[in-house]
Amino acid sequence: MRLRGRKGIREDIERQKELVVLNAKDHKGKWAALFGNNNPIHAELGMGKGRFISEMSKKYPDINFIGVDMYDELIRKASEKAKVAHELQSEEETDAVLNIPNLKLMLFNIEHIEEAFAEGELERVYLNFSDPWPKKKHARRRLTHPGFVEKYKQILNAKGEIHLKTDSQSLFEFSLNSFADMGLRMRNISLNLHVDGIHPDHVMTEYETKFAGQGMNIHRCEVVIGQDALAAHLEQLSKPQAE
Amino acid sequence: MRLRGRKGIREDIERQKELVVLNAKDHKGKWAALFGNNNPIHAELGMGKGRFISEMSKKYPDINFIGVDMYDELIRKASEKAKVAHELQSEEETDAVLNIPNLKLMLFNIEHIEEAFAEGELERVYLNFSDPWPKKKHARRRLTHPGFVEKYKQILNAKGEIHLKTDSQSLFEFSLNSFADMGLRMRNISLNLHVDGIHPDHVMTEYETKFAGQGMNIHRCEVVIGQDALAAHLEQLSKPQAE
Repeated sequence: MRLRGRKGIREDIERQKELVVLNAKDHKGKWAALFGNNNPIHAELGMGKGRFISEMSKKYPDINFIGVDMYDELIRKASEKAKVAHELQSEEETDAVLNIPNLKLMLFNIEHIEEAFAEGELERVYLNFSDPWPKKKHARRRLTHPGFVEKYKQILNAKGEIHLKTDSQSLFEFSLNSFADMGLRMRNISLNLHVDGIHPDHVMTEYETKFAGQGMNIHRCEVVIGQDALAAHLEQLSKPQAE
Repeated sequence: MRLRGRKGIREDIERQKELVVLNAKDHKGKWAALFGNNNPIHAELGMGKGRFISEMSKKYPDINFIGVDMYDELIRKASEKAKVAHELQSEEETDAVLNIPNLKLMLFNIEHIEEAFAEGELERVYLNFSDPWPKKKHARRRLTHPGFVEKYKQILNAKGEIHLKTDSQSLFEFSLNSFADMGLRMRNISLNLHVDGIHPDHVMTEYETKFAGQGMNIHRCEVVIGQDALAAHLEQLSKPQAE
């Protein structure tokens, strides 16, 4: 990937007017209009280089995806990934304006996520390999701190869920306690995803490919937030289970 | 430890009339009478060689402890541990009848635990390093299978809790999902107990000493079952936390 100066990066992402959202607050409560349909919206908070959100948007055309990160360099890298994932053009042609109907890359600080989304505007929040912030004094910065989770609860709809995936044992432990202390309903907890067996539709992130390849444990958990999601989950549990 | 034939083992445990309970069903609903007081009763289901329950009974004289296992050889070993933990006599003198006021060793199959305890008769259930039964077809034998946990819920009182500790990642994962699917309230989840830092009062089991010494992860979790325990837990959570 060619290196560009900071100014060049900014120019690159500004050129991607269809794909990149720089003014997220202006779309609060109006994301459906931006996508042009009422499909569910899934957001990955901290998308990194964007492989996961790109592949998901390719795989599930009837879901709208938003990849969020606060660094313009990552937004630019993610737009490259999106181009490749959607086979829009070769990696060399970098100047075309990309338009992927069900994908937006949003430059934004997750700390203020409630300023970008209205109540119930999202159906799913993905947290993939978030920064573990291992020092105790930084606990509030972890994306599964109750301070953040309260915000997700607010912007998720009745079918809302949080899907967490991390290689960090300490972040996973913190997250489980955070969800438990908030009285939230967890599901499909996995302490070693690639040993437990992954779903054939599972989409890997960059980190995941690297860490799982090194034999590190990947931890995963879903949190059922919305009332309808909870009702569906309880109904599922009430059915007799196969042994 | 000297080896004895099966008949010798049975003779040994039958001699320990004060410590060993062979007719647990006869005491259902009457354990307080057997202990001679109304102190809370904590039971370790699957006590193995009995180090944990012995040391706990020494450490907490105001709690009544019951160690449960289905093998008479383990009951005999546990009675030896109890003798040592309580410094009752040297290990050589094996024939004395031991009487430890707040400890009973109970020969019983945990599968039928509800036949030995009445509703609300226990205040805590300890599950330490239970058999992980790794094969899926044996899932029902795992002591954290919902079939077992329903029984614990029945025999635990309003302050009731389940405390789980295991080196087995697969059993711990199964247990978290089991508790979550039952809608139970978990607390103090630890994926690596001896790294997270253990409480100074923490009592180790035989397995734990061995596995932690080998650098293996010890997993731990508490489940808040009783209404009073839950109310106290929620009150605790509502207090401002230190950073």
